[in-house]
Amino acid sequence: MIEKLPTPAFIGKVKFDANGLVTTVAQDATSGEVLMVAWMNEESLRLTLQTGQATYWSRSRQSLWRKGETSGHTQQISEILIDCDGDTLLLKVRQTGPACHTGAPTCFFQKADI
Amino acid sequence: MIEKLPTPAFIGKVKFDANGLVTTVAQDATSGEVLMVAWMNEESLRLTLQTGQATYWSRSRQSLWRKGETSGHTQQISEILIDCDGDTLLLKVRQTGPACHTGAPTCFFQKADI
Repeated sequence: MIEKLPTPAFIGKVKFDANGLVTTVAQDATSGEVLMVAWMNEESLRLTLQTGQATYWSRSRQSLWRKGETSGHTQQISEILIDCDGDTLLLKVRQTGPACHTGAPTCFFQKADI
Repeated sequence: MIEKLPTPAFIGKVKFDANGLVTTVAQDATSGEVLMVAWMNEESLRLTLQTGQATYWSRSRQSLWRKGETSGHTQQISEILIDCDGDTLLLKVRQTGPACHTGAPTCFFQKADI
């Protein structure tokens, strides 16, 4: 059973780490495929909630990063969930084009041959 | 197209962070549901690959944590993937019982009412 939380209560549940970031998983809302993992700070989470477009915090560039702002490969938000202990977010998204900067549909295209 | 990597090459791709950890997403291999996010160090990854049972690093207890070792709610590995930049793993698992310590099927049972 999924509990629905008003936006302020939802944001209040997030435990940002020492760098002010929270791990965020993006999953294709239709196929269920896990597309990528990125990080959000509070501002990027607020922007994502306000605009309905996934916006992350780029740790390499140290700046806000609206997914697809240069590539056009945007992520429209379908659902945003938070885990039991508040340190991970799960975005269910409608992905335009490939999610990965390599052009692969998902960033997870290499697997252990076990 | 998924690339298969022999185990040593796979482990060699992992970029462990300053604490020696890598973010790890567990997904139900059948339903596609994202179950939880946890962390692995190199030893837990090797144990996971060797035993076929998900073993994480507990940051709160600072010890290896074979998922289900006390609860019985184990995760049998179906696939292990790594993302394009090597800083996140994705486990596709066969979950026994609920994945979440709260008894919920997944740790993601709270969502923003947007």
